[in-house]
Amino acid sequence: MQRAISLAQKGHYTTSPNPRVGCVIVKGGQVVGEGYHIKAGTEHAEVHALAMAKEQAKGAVAYVTLEPCSHFGRTPPCAQALINSGVKEVVVAMVDPNPQVSGRGLTLLEQAGIKTKVGLLLAQAQALNPGFIKMMSTGLPYVRCKLASSLDGKTAMANGESKWITSPQARSDVQRLRAQSCAIITGADSVLMDKAKMTVRWQELGSLKENYPQNELRQPVRVIIDSQNRITPDLPIFDTPSEVVLVRAAIENNLQWPSFVQQIQLPLAATASGTEKIDLRAVLHYLAQRGFNDVLLESGARLAGAFIEQDLVDELVLYQAPKLMGADGKSLMAMPGIENLAAAKQVAIDDVRMVGPDIRITAKLEENKTCLPE
Amino acid sequence: MQRAISLAQKGHYTTSPNPRVGCVIVKGGQVVGEGYHIKAGTEHAEVHALAMAKEQAKGAVAYVTLEPCSHFGRTPPCAQALINSGVKEVVVAMVDPNPQVSGRGLTLLEQAGIKTKVGLLLAQAQALNPGFIKMMSTGLPYVRCKLASSLDGKTAMANGESKWITSPQARSDVQRLRAQSCAIITGADSVLMDKAKMTVRWQELGSLKENYPQNELRQPVRVIIDSQNRITPDLPIFDTPSEVVLVRAAIENNLQWPSFVQQIQLPLAATASGTEKIDLRAVLHYLAQRGFNDVLLESGARLAGAFIEQDLVDELVLYQAPKLMGADGKSLMAMPGIENLAAAKQVAIDDVRMVGPDIRITAKLEENKTCLPE
Repeated sequence: MQRAISLAQKGHYTTSPNPRVGCVIVKGGQVVGEGYHIKAGTEHAEVHALAMAKEQAKGAVAYVTLEPCSHFGRTPPCAQALINSGVKEVVVAMVDPNPQVSGRGLTLLEQAGIKTKVGLLLAQAQALNPGFIKMMSTGLPYVRCKLASSLDGKTAMANGESKWITSPQARSDVQRLRAQSCAIITGADSVLMDKAKMTVRWQELGSLKENYPQNELRQPVRVIIDSQNRITPDLPIFDTPSEVVLVRAAIENNLQWPSFVQQIQLPLAATASGTEKIDLRAVLHYLAQRGFNDVLLESGARLAGAFIEQDLVDELVLYQAPKLMGADGKSLMAMPGIENLAAAKQVAIDDVRMVGPDIRITAKLEENKTCLPE
Repeated sequence: MQRAISLAQKGHYTTSPNPRVGCVIVKGGQVVGEGYHIKAGTEHAEVHALAMAKEQAKGAVAYVTLEPCSHFGRTPPCAQALINSGVKEVVVAMVDPNPQVSGRGLTLLEQAGIKTKVGLLLAQAQALNPGFIKMMSTGLPYVRCKLASSLDGKTAMANGESKWITSPQARSDVQRLRAQSCAIITGADSVLMDKAKMTVRWQELGSLKENYPQNELRQPVRVIIDSQNRITPDLPIFDTPSEVVLVRAAIENNLQWPSFVQQIQLPLAATASGTEKIDLRAVLHYLAQRGFNDVLLESGARLAGAFIEQDLVDELVLYQAPKLMGADGKSLMAMPGIENLAAAKQVAIDDVRMVGPDIRITAKLEENKTCLPE
């Protein structure tokens, strides 16, 4: 199963919106077939592995990181392919997270007299597909919020200076976060003031370039929350001809937009501070409808704070530069509705490591957990 | 030498103001003697090792983490003891950092016909004694600044709530920082508002307790910067009968203080914000005169920021709780004189690790280094 998980990881930047899946077929202690899902619309992992195993699949054991599908999608059901191959046992790391089909693939296999096991290396299998699992189980994408600050939690000096706080290595690491995302959400402030482009720059992908040829590079859809219609077509974000979605409270028809730009109108919602802002949950629902499992939020303190305050962020990726900027600098995230320690957002640290001279902290947001003293 | 360094570490909490030193004597590939310095006024590492080696020291090689002393202090010179023992070679990790005696021990040995080598495991040997080295080379103590914040750099909510942001494990870790310090500097705000006691609580020293019996516990001298004479004898910090120094702009004689409290008067100096505050460099000079090599600064944002802004801090130990508190919370450190990114303080991360659910970051302040973009 460990091998199947490693195989699944190879599809990390390409399978979306499908899950990353790996499959290994073992007979008499020998691997006779293996494969992984590369890209939506192409063969699933099981099909690759069975094609390699051919006749040797008979009587073999198949290890799959995710329950084989039971339905005709863009490809025929893998559970049926496994049955047809003659394998005697199927070991699955996790069941399908979609409650509507969960367990059906296993039932099909069992009805055909194939032995099944579930749960081997479950946590690792789950970590392959946080976006797919979140979407299937909740109907909302997995939101990763990227932030960068000094060690003392500041993103800019009082005079506005902020470029660049973090190192080239950290910025290159962010490119990998972008490359694995279906969409990037940002705010009008970042696009206007920081002249952010929010593109994946292939040259900066480092070792990832080896397995991810430049001509297969997928640019995430860039989503700009622009409730006051401040964005104009002359901004640098429109230099790259790749889809941009302008989320607005009202569609604007006076300016000439490039063909890859579309405006969508979404409702406003009252915020903790009393003002009305674009309903962020509606933004995520829109992205879910588009089939975007993995969304990266790269924005300033107000938008990031609003997403976190509303419990819409699943994971925080925080780069801390080895600098101290002082209390007059700009704070990392505004959460005006958080007024006492019990309401502060609790996270669980997943990973802490150095990225060049900077620290990278990955943490899961713990929804509804309070910060009461231990 | 590795063994000598491990031995030296055993004196970590007890040798002050003397350096931590270890010595191993090797003959024919066998360790024939070893020892370390335990406590000021008692035998040095070399003397312990030679006492163990006895006659076998003749023709042996001595490994010492620090250049053997050449002068009569509270004990006779170790260089002479090594000469008398008949060792043929002395390998030293680092020379004495005191410029007035540096190299003299080695010269004595060489004049007696003993072969010497210097520099083996130098960095590790230096890490044994940052306080001793700083004091000997600059005349000022090594200042470690302990701070605790949320992931977004806040120490308290806007409503003042701050207890406890970090975990019991982090607070226990702070006890170890206190235990290895000669003095703890704090501000009147912490003593008044947080009711801080700034004592070492032996029960919380964890595994350290095994090598550090309760009856040998040394309480660091507590130094309170109290420029406005706001501290009164009824505060909890005076519950523990262990020395407290009140640093004041003017001595006050109206209140009845416990016998372990002394007031000292130090000059004021102009600060970046224009107001006059106790001259922090004068505080460190006072502590240096007292022979305090290792000083811990545990204070609020203003005092910590002032020390850092004036380049008086050598090391930052920052505990980050897995919480997000929002922009309205209280910032980690005030540095009103830092007005642009080039003036921001640059640090170098030494160590990052989890302490319970919290992150602990240890960083060296890089004096005079600016934060210009790379």
